This record gives sequence, C-alpha cells and structure tokens, in this order.
Amino acid sequence: MTASYEAMWERLGLDLEAHASLLEVLGKFYGDIYLSQQGRLRGMEYLDFVLSEIHGLRIRELEEAKAQGRKVIGTFCVFVPEEIVWAADAIQVGLCAGAEAGTEAAEKILPRNTCALIKSFVGFKLARLCPFTESCDMVVGETTCDGKKKAYEIFSDYAPVYVMEIPQMKRDSDRALWKAEVLRFKRAVEDLTGREVTAERLREAIRLINRRRRVLQRLNRLRAARPVPISGRDVLLINQVSFYDDPDRFTQKVDELCDELEEKVRRGEGVADGAARVLLSGCPMAVPNWKLPYIIESSGAVVVGEESCIGTRNTRDLVDEGGTTLDEMLDAVVDRYMKIDCACFTPNTERLEHIVDLARGLDVKGVIHYGLSFCQPYAMESFKVERALRDAGIPMLSIETDYSMEDVEQLKTRVEAFVEMIR
Amino acid sequence: MTASYEAMWERLGLDLEAHASLLEVLGKFYGDIYLSQQGRLRGMEYLDFVLSEIHGLRIRELEEAKAQGRKVIGTFCVFVPEEIVWAADAIQVGLCAGAEAGTEAAEKILPRNTCALIKSFVGFKLARLCPFTESCDMVVGETTCDGKKKAYEIFSDYAPVYVMEIPQMKRDSDRALWKAEVLRFKRAVEDLTGREVTAERLREAIRLINRRRRVLQRLNRLRAARPVPISGRDVLLINQVSFYDDPDRFTQKVDELCDELEEKVRRGEGVADGAARVLLSGCPMAVPNWKLPYIIESSGAVVVGEESCIGTRNTRDLVDEGGTTLDEMLDAVVDRYMKIDCACFTPNTERLEHIVDLARGLDVKGVIHYGLSFCQPYAMESFKVERALRDAGIPMLSIETDYSMEDVEQLKTRVEAFVEMIR
Ligand code: SF4
Ligand code: SF4
Ligand code: SF4
Ligand code: SF4
Repeated sequence: MTASYEAMWERLGLDLEAHASLLEVLGKFYGDIYLSQQGRLRGMEYLDFVLSEIHGLRIRELEEAKAQGRKVIGTFCVFVPEEIVWAADAIQVGLCAGAEAGTEAAEKILPRNTCALIKSFVGFKLARLCPFTESCDMVVGETTCDGKKKAYEIFSDYAPVYVMEIPQMKRDSDRALWKAEVLRFKRAVEDLTGREVTAERLREAIRLINRRRRVLQRLNRLRAARPVPISGRDVLLINQVSFYDDPDRFTQKVDELCDELEEKVRRGEGVADGAARVLLSGCPMAVPNWKLPYIIESSGAVVVGEESCIGTRNTRDLVDEGGTTLDEMLDAVVDRYMKIDCACFTPNTERLEHIVDLARGLDVKGVIHYGLSFCQPYAMESFKVERALRDAGIPMLSIETDYSMEDVEQLKTRVEAFVEMIR
Repeated sequence: MTASYEAMWERLGLDLEAHASLLEVLGKFYGDIYLSQQGRLRGMEYLDFVLSEIHGLRIRELEEAKAQGRKVIGTFCVFVPEEIVWAADAIQVGLCAGAEAGTEAAEKILPRNTCALIKSFVGFKLARLCPFTESCDMVVGETTCDGKKKAYEIFSDYAPVYVMEIPQMKRDSDRALWKAEVLRFKRAVEDLTGREVTAERLREAIRLINRRRRVLQRLNRLRAARPVPISGRDVLLINQVSFYDDPDRFTQKVDELCDELEEKVRRGEGVADGAARVLLSGCPMAVPNWKLPYIIESSGAVVVGEESCIGTRNTRDLVDEGGTTLDEMLDAVVDRYMKIDCACFTPNTERLEHIVDLARGLDVKGVIHYGLSFCQPYAMESFKVERALRDAGIPMLSIETDYSMEDVEQLKTRVEAFVEMIR
C-alpha cells in the first residue's frame, strides 16, 4: 500500500523511513501469525484487508472526514464514553499501542520502569510512527493507573491532551464525580466540534455503539462452541479492529462473519482439534501485540475468551436504550461506564466474579492471566484472581511480559508446561 | 530495653526472636548514623530516647490508653485527617515502614515490582515485627498510588483495614468527593471509638495538630540559617518521630529544642562547615530509612530541607482555626488536606512551584530528588521537577533506590560527583 499513501503520511509528519520499516515488520509478523492459519473463515478477509490498510485506507477516511470539518478523537482506555464522541459527529479511534518501536525515544522522557503500552504510545508519538495519533484533534487521557495518569502530563507537551478523571471506588460520591466528568467531556467535545450533543444524536450514537457491542457478544457466543470454530487470535484481531474501524461497517462485516461462523458451528467444524480451552485474562492487548495468544495457540491450547478491555470487558455491558430525554440518556451512559471492572478500582470484586463465571461458562481447562510488566493494578489483582479461581477449582498461570521478543522461548516453556498440566 | 517489654511484645503476638534481631540492627544503625555526630543539640537527647524506646515505652503508652478504652488508628499517608482521630479521642500513629525486614514474606503475596515502603509494611505484618501495627484497632489505607491502593486489598486479609478515597484532581467535584470521604471517615471513627466528634473536641484537635505543625515550621526556619545549625538527619528524625509520639509532649520538647537552636544560631555555630546546602525532595522517608541522607551528609553536603511528606509537605499548611460550628471546622479540615501536593494528583503544578520556591528560599546549591524504585508517581513527576528546576537554574540529581544496602557505594559515587559539581 505504501506508494499511494506516502504523500498523506508526509502531510501527517511521519518519519517515512522508520514508518516503512515498521510496516514491513508488522506485515511479516501478521503473515506468520495470521495468514499461516488453516481453514480460516472467508469473513476474516475483511479483517485482513482492514489490517493491511490500517495506516492507509482508514487514515485516508479520517483525512476525508477532517476535510469535511469532522474531528478525530483518540483514546487509550475504554472508559472514554464513545457515545458522546459520535453524538457530536466526531470520530473516535483507539491509540492504545502494542508495538515496541519508539521505546528508546520514550525512555528519554519516561522512567524505564513503565509499562510497555505507555512507552509504546509515547514512543510512537516521539518517533512519529503513528498516523492515527497524528490525525487526532484531541487525545483523551484518563486517571486509571499511575503510569498513564502521570505520563499524560508529559505527553501533553506533544499532543492536544484532555484528561478525564476516573473514580477509584463505586459509591454515590464516585458516581457523582464521574457524572460531572462525563458532562465536562461532553462540553469539551462540543467545543471542539462545534456540534451540540442533542437527545436525538445521542440516541443514535447509543444505538450505534450498542449494535457493535451486540455483534461482538454474538461472536463471543459462537466462538465458544465445541469444537472451537475460530482461533482466539482471530477473535482478538476482530476486537482490536473494533477500536479503529467505522462502527457501522464493522458491525455489518462482523455480523456476516458470524453468519458464516454459525454455519460452521452447525456443521461441527473446529479449528483446534483436541486443544485445551483456555481463557485469557488481564491487561488489554493492543495491535500488534499477538505474542502471547500465538504462543498459547502454538502450545496445544486454544483461547475461547478474552477477559480484557480488548475483549469482553468492552462488550459485556450495553447502554440502556430506554431513555427519552437527553438527561436520561446521559445517565444511562454514566451508569454503563461505571460498571467497568478495571483493576484500577478498589475493591474490584466484580471482576473476580466475572472471571470465575466466564471460566465456568466457557468450560475452560484453565486461565492464563496476562499482565504487562510494571502494571501494578493488574499484577496485584492477579493474586486475588488466582485465589478466586483456586477456590473454584480452576488452574491459573500468571504471565508478566512486555512487547519484546526476548522472552518468547521462556514463555513457550511455561505455557507448554501449563497446558500439559491442565489438558 | 528488651527485658521489661518482652511480655508486652508477646501479648501483641510479635515474633520475639526476629524482633530482637531487628532492634539490634536498628540500634547499631542508629548509633552509626546518629550518635556518632559531633556537637549535637542537647534537645536531641529526647529524640534519641524516643527512638530507643520506640517499640517499648510508646507501645506501653498505647497499651495503657487501650486499657482505658481508647482506640489506636494506624495510617500510611498524610492524607488521613488526624484532627478527626484525635477529636474522637483515638490515638493516631504512622505505620509507614522504612526497613527491609519482612520483604521476603511480603513478596509471597505482592509482586516483586512493588515499592519498598509497601513491601515493608506488609512484610512487617506478615513477619510480626511491628508492635504499632499490632496495636491498631483500625488501619487506614488510601487510594493514593496503584501500589498502595491494591496492596490494601491484600493487606485487609491480615489487618482491620479501612480505605479512604483520595481524588486525583482538584476541581469542585473532587472537593465534594473528598468531603464525603472525610465525613464517612468521621462516622467510621465515631463508630470505632463510640465517641462523637463534637465542635468543641474538633476545635481542640485542630489546635493540637496545628501547634505541632507550627513548631515544625519553626524548626524548619531555624535549621535554614547560615551556618547550618543542625544536621538534616536530625531534622528528618524529628519529623519521623512526629508520626509516633504524643503530639502535646512532642510539641513541647521540639519547642525547647528550637529555643536551644535559636541560641546556637545567634552564636553563629554550625554543624557542617563549608558543606553544600541541598534540598531533598520526593518520596517520604520512614523510620529507619536514613540511608540517603546519611550518604549525602557524608559527601560534603548538608540537607537544609525535606520536600516530602515526612517533611514540609506535612507541616506547610495549617487548618484554619476560624470556624465556630462543627460544619465550618470540617470544611476547614477538608480544605487543608486538599492542598497537599502529592504526586498522585494530576496535574500537580503546585508541587513544582513549591520546590522551586523552597530551593530559592533555602538558597540551596542543588536538589536531590529521591524516589523509591517502582514508585511511578514520583518517578514520572521527577522529569517535570527536573525541568522546573533547570528553568530556575538549579541543578538536580535524581536518585532511585530502595531499602537495601547493596547500592550504597554506587549512590555515594553519584552523590559525591553531584556535590563536587554544585559546590
Ligand atoms: S484495563 Fe483499565 S485502564 Fe486499561 S483500558 Fe481497560 S479500563 Fe482502561
Ligand atoms: S497495562 Fe497497566 S500500567 Fe499499563 S497502561 Fe494499562 S493499567 Fe496502566
Ligand atoms: S507521598 Fe502522597 S501517598 Fe505518600 S504519604 Fe505523601 S500524600 Fe500520601
Ligand atoms: S513511595 Fe510511591 S509507590 Fe510507594 S507507597 Fe509511596 S506513592 Fe506509593
């Protein structure tokens, strides 16, 4: 795709040379991990296409939208209420970065002991590698973890950062604070776009995003069949793409893919004969962070669920569609987001319950808990997750890693031993 | 002191053998760092005495108070509004731990990548080393950093933990949340003690704690004289003891010490001829974490200020004494604590201003920023502190360390080089 987009990337100020090598590495990695799979669904062609065009066609679409006066808002966390963004006719894109490129640059302005995800988004910016970041008119940070909270202060020297405060408990005063935050965000987005969030537009946006959540719920039901009809990697990819793609188109395409999947399930066709069913749980895995799922699925297991923000945590809860006034709808948005069971909350017992329920419902042999190195919320919570699962008689393997490839062999050994034990 | 207190320590459930070796190490360490100093103030004898009796006499006092029905409340953070505790006739003690003992035990239930302070308080509990922790009827945690926020969830399996939510920004909705938290805390303390926080008692408590803050302010003014009349280590010790000692007695004793200090200043007597004046800034240094100050003051420098919670951050702001109704006084308490410039806030520009002002006011040659390893809030903020100081023409050295003695030589080399450069 390179040739036709170079001028656009140049306009966005990318480092063309570094960006070209990034795309090359990404392409090769994708070929090894995705295209090498046997008997994939035809519907995955759309995802392959979107991913191959992720820095091309999608960015051109953003460029065209911007030319028509629309705004692009980048986010790092599923706490940012997307409904508000779309209701103000802006476009939301996920900036959560999953590659190591740029880490060296990032470590000049951030401590080394920072999680890979943070280093990645800061590094991508400093090294001018990400056309999404460069397309953003507003970048929304949040106070979820110490790392991000403080990194945004530094990042705001380089990008138009707006920060939302996320409460740390779930009582009345927290809900009040969160509601104030959602209203403040609404005003900020309205100021940016010059478009008012009306009841009508918000209703449409709520339905739009709920539809996308519903189709991902459908995918999650189908993928859990026996035999497993689709690889965990493919489902992860679909979840990842949901953060970048146009929501309407994405919903339609994934719905078609689900029709095909349903057929496959009916025919009793599987992709991983005899593989041990496992649930992945923990930190989000942003594009192209496919290392661990690939290792798992090359070790005699198959991932049948992702308990993470790039997974069920982002699709489980819908916004109530019953509201008729703007106020009622805003309250519904506020309530839906307060249900997120991120490890940034204390206590966060809902998450423990969700994991156990999910593991039982999916009938997995074990859970692999994934934490990014230096991510304290998930690392600490993993001790509680392990205990809750132990009490439920479900084995868990705790993995802490980052985006480098140095530990691949070591991870393989550990995952293989775990799979051997649980199957 | 051992013999006469053994029965008490046994009653508290301490591991007597491990505790005895802890006291031995502590005593030796104290001798080397403190008692070896020349020309100390007579007033320091009181501090030496308190410290030598820290697990003895003070614990006996707590035991006696408890026998009379009073409650002991332990804290880890200067955000816990002490006025409420004293107004309910309870006793507040700081549990913030500064020693490595117990780390091994702590690492079984906490990630290795956790700051030394957290590992220390958890380790002290698991290894049954701390008579203060064992004396507590309530242990108050707070949601300041990810590490503590999540560690309290685990710690609550072992101690009667109560958690306060600290907001992360300083807007109206944050103040409202914080006020709700202070009121909730008041009710919890009242429930524990069975004593109501009345206007009269709160007024007394506000004055009591303000008096302690004022005497520490006086100390901080006097210690900044030229020549420097008291070592930084000694001032740090006084600040550390302020978290354990009876506030009235402490205030009186430190006031006497200040009289003596004033005399010394009048006579123009110094303790560190020709040493470079430096400001220490960053994470709190809990007893017996004297490693870095000792290294600094053995390297041709003298510490003339501690910009930390065991330092000026805890003494700078008074609670307004003008309130007459309970409500007004509670509001004054709420407002005073909202001024704390901990790195857990975003943005936290007040701290940058305070550091620059302090460095200028104390006329230091440089600032040494101290962060505990894996403390993300202070590590990230140190980049901003460095920049603010650079803009003000003040050199800064950034140190990241923990409680182990392994890096002493390396730290010495770095500090000596810095002192050489700035003097
Ligand atoms: S894990 Fe927490 S901080 Fe991360 S994207 Fe999810 S909700 Fe946000
Ligand atoms: S992985 Fe953890 S440390 Fe990293 S951004 Fe997410 S919550 Fe923060
Ligand atoms: S540095 Fe922050 S978290 Fe630590 S004691 Fe001070 S206010 Fe509390
Ligand atoms: S030093 Fe930092 S990480 Fe440790 S308890 Fe204090 S704020 Fe938290």
